[in-house]
Amino acid sequence: MATSNAIEQLKEALKALPGVGPKNAQRMAFHLMERNREGAQKIADALNNALERIISCQRCNTFCESEICDICASEKRDKQLLCVVETPADLQAIEQVGAYRGLYFVLMGKLSPLEGIGPEQLGFKRLNAIVAENQIREVIIATNITAEGETTADYTQQMLAPYGISITRLARGVPVGGELEYMDQRTLAAAFKDRRATS
Amino acid sequence: MATSNAIEQLKEALKALPGVGPKNAQRMAFHLMERNREGAQKIADALNNALERIISCQRCNTFCESEICDICASEKRDKQLLCVVETPADLQAIEQVGAYRGLYFVLMGKLSPLEGIGPEQLGFKRLNAIVAENQIREVIIATNITAEGETTADYTQQMLAPYGISITRLARGVPVGGELEYMDQRTLAAAFKDRRATS
Repeated sequence: MATSNAIEQLKEALKALPGVGPKNAQRMAFHLMERNREGAQKIADALNNALERIISCQRCNTFCESEICDICASEKRDKQLLCVVETPADLQAIEQVGAYRGLYFVLMGKLSPLEGIGPEQLGFKRLNAIVAENQIREVIIATNITAEGETTADYTQQMLAPYGISITRLARGVPVGGELEYMDQRTLAAAFKDRRATS
Repeated sequence: MATSNAIEQLKEALKALPGVGPKNAQRMAFHLMERNREGAQKIADALNNALERIISCQRCNTFCESEICDICASEKRDKQLLCVVETPADLQAIEQVGAYRGLYFVLMGKLSPLEGIGPEQLGFKRLNAIVAENQIREVIIATNITAEGETTADYTQQMLAPYGISITRLARGVPVGGELEYMDQRTLAAAFKDRRATS
């Protein structure tokens, strides 16, 4: 081999990053070793730090560094509102909008029979307990608008139906800035079906 | 903040990877922490291992884990042929072709006045010494066919001209599989200028 074992191992390891194939992993490995050893050290340290510190919130499942995350512990959040999302990344996307002031529950995945992920593999049991034990007036299901996300939403809706509380889903429709001409048929069909009254 | 400090630090650190912006860094950080903690550990270990072990070959400058790299130490290589490349990645690309059996010299960069990289910042002094002290019959300049690569090639050529040895450059032209219709003008012009006699 023309390169060292350490480079080969690094290339192999970098393929664990999402969307990174062999070519890209090689480019990253050479770049870091040639031009940015300081950056490489920072990545290694940040990974070790994250692996050591990041745990799941005991209540809502999202990433945190203490037993209960900041959102669940906050006095300012509306504890009667619960938003169900698939992942911590989804939670963060909603938080960045800044319009929602309730609590969250993170399923940590989506139902996917093909990959052997059923309700037992996700956080449904705890979600059920939270709804049973707390005074919640509305559950907002904010799973992705994909086949698996919709299946997960349907399951959540059915599981929580007996509680007789309000259960809502995110609106489907044309994205803001979207042009009808370029919209796919299913989005356009959903936007027609869910059309709203003008105020 | 909705996420932990450790996640924010990890996102920041991952931006050191080439071609990775804030969005992609976030996706990588969440992916590793949500779904592939084992992979994250492997990346951290591989980075630390590479940082500790990878040094430069005392002769040709490429990455290696001992004083002299395998290629420079090999008895099977033609020591009268020297190929000058910009980076270890270029060296590896040529090695993967398997057609070249001489030695290399890695400049570890290219001349770039705009970035303050002059001849002193690259390995020209050592390259000069290698050509002066060894019986070399041909130097093949294999820098990139970019503005900076061509400048670097010109400088190398002028520096080595006094030795009176054969100095060659890689052929420029239409890539194998390339269609003339889609070729840029400068490539086509170079292919015309450097046209070869049919055998």
